[in-house]
Amino acid sequence: MEIKVIGIGAGDPDHLTLQAARAIAATDVFFVLDKGEVKQELVDLRTEILRRHAGEHRVVVGRDPDRDRSSDAYVESVDDWRRRRAEVCAALIARELTEEGTGAFLVWGDPSLYDSTLAILEDILGRGELRFDVEVIPGISSVSALAAKHRIGLNQVGKPIQVTTGRRLAQAWPDGVDDVVVMLDAQTALTEHTDQDADIYWGAYLGTPDELLIAGKVAEVADEIERVRAEARERKGWIMDTYLLRRNHR
Amino acid sequence: MEIKVIGIGAGDPDHLTLQAARAIAATDVFFVLDKGEVKQELVDLRTEILRRHAGEHRVVVGRDPDRDRSSDAYVESVDDWRRRRAEVCAALIARELTEEGTGAFLVWGDPSLYDSTLAILEDILGRGELRFDVEVIPGISSVSALAAKHRIGLNQVGKPIQVTTGRRLAQAWPDGVDDVVVMLDAQTALTEHTDQDADIYWGAYLGTPDELLIAGKVAEVADEIERVRAEARERKGWIMDTYLLRRNHR
Repeated sequence: MEIKVIGIGAGDPDHLTLQAARAIAATDVFFVLDKGEVKQELVDLRTEILRRHAGEHRVVVGRDPDRDRSSDAYVESVDDWRRRRAEVCAALIARELTEEGTGAFLVWGDPSLYDSTLAILEDILGRGELRFDVEVIPGISSVSALAAKHRIGLNQVGKPIQVTTGRRLAQAWPDGVDDVVVMLDAQTALTEHTDQDADIYWGAYLGTPDELLIAGKVAEVADEIERVRAEARERKGWIMDTYLLRRNHR
Repeated sequence: MEIKVIGIGAGDPDHLTLQAARAIAATDVFFVLDKGEVKQELVDLRTEILRRHAGEHRVVVGRDPDRDRSSDAYVESVDDWRRRRAEVCAALIARELTEEGTGAFLVWGDPSLYDSTLAILEDILGRGELRFDVEVIPGISSVSALAAKHRIGLNQVGKPIQVTTGRRLAQAWPDGVDDVVVMLDAQTALTEHTDQDADIYWGAYLGTPDELLIAGKVAEVADEIERVRAEARERKGWIMDTYLLRRNHR
């Protein structure tokens, strides 16, 4: 039994690597956890990728358990959510994949960045009831896509970059870095840092026809980003965005 | 005139994205700065990628100016080097690319991470003598390839990651992060941190037939990494490696 975790890029079907296309072609069963949210474009995009690259295959959809977002204990709530997702996935794999079969999870962006699929598979293997090999196929992350669209490097010469979450950026600018990439920012934490002499490079729905890009001094464009973001979220029912904050520091 | 900066992945020709393959097929002139170093495998790999994907094209090779590595002023020395590289590239572009032509630079990994091509093109455009559009095509970074091969996420749940250089890690463990990705480590700075309760995930020549992977407690495997790294560098004449240090912290 083999499970492939395949990064499929940030939203453009042409972000797919040749390695990913080949892995998709060799997959018997695709496992999907349906979040029940209105992200029809993402479902359509995934369907289009399978239409172009998959061979004979099945798609098996499980119900993604709800996450307790009311909890203050963020890590515990995510851990618990992951365990419940692992249970759902373990049942699907046991039922749908034969000993000689190859299953796959398709992951937006790159499986190594703020994605839970690898942790879920490790959780399943840790229970000892199922045995399978795991292969991970890297993908174009939304961070790489963001930098490419703005035609910028993420780092300044010889300097570090921090990749962090909106939740953390809302608390404070991270120590020791001038370049901060923010993912998973539900609260628009960037508005907390308009007092900084910093440039922002923001992007949403990267690689898709709805792509939005805004760049400028964070003090000057923060309001515009907040407005454009709120409008887009309202219009489409969901948002996926990321940004780089680059502090001018000497 | 258009110049594409194309990320071609970390060393596996199948890291190429469909977007990159298409861009390569549409390129008239590929610009290469020859470092004059013995990295024949990388030259071969680039040649193989062009053989598979390029249409009718020219490859134009310029002499990469030497960098003053004796200087203590790292940033200034890199800035100066970049300016001299920009002069070489500007001359090549002016001579080789017609007004309707499409040129390209192929970049290992992802053009947004510790690569100077975008800065060089910006420098050229800043002089005002040449006008061209720039398109950037993201690629699989060695960081994504490293995580995929070790089948790990780069971040822990809800926590930040710092991407930094060996030069900086040799000075100190960065503030505020437990997960540190290190690139460009000529000095094996990891050996400075064997007193940490940390795991290391190390990889060299990622994606190539010579790929090397070592993982374990940094205190236990640092010597092995240093030895394997020195042997490989001696044998092949060059090394390209990267690693994640993950501190166990509660």
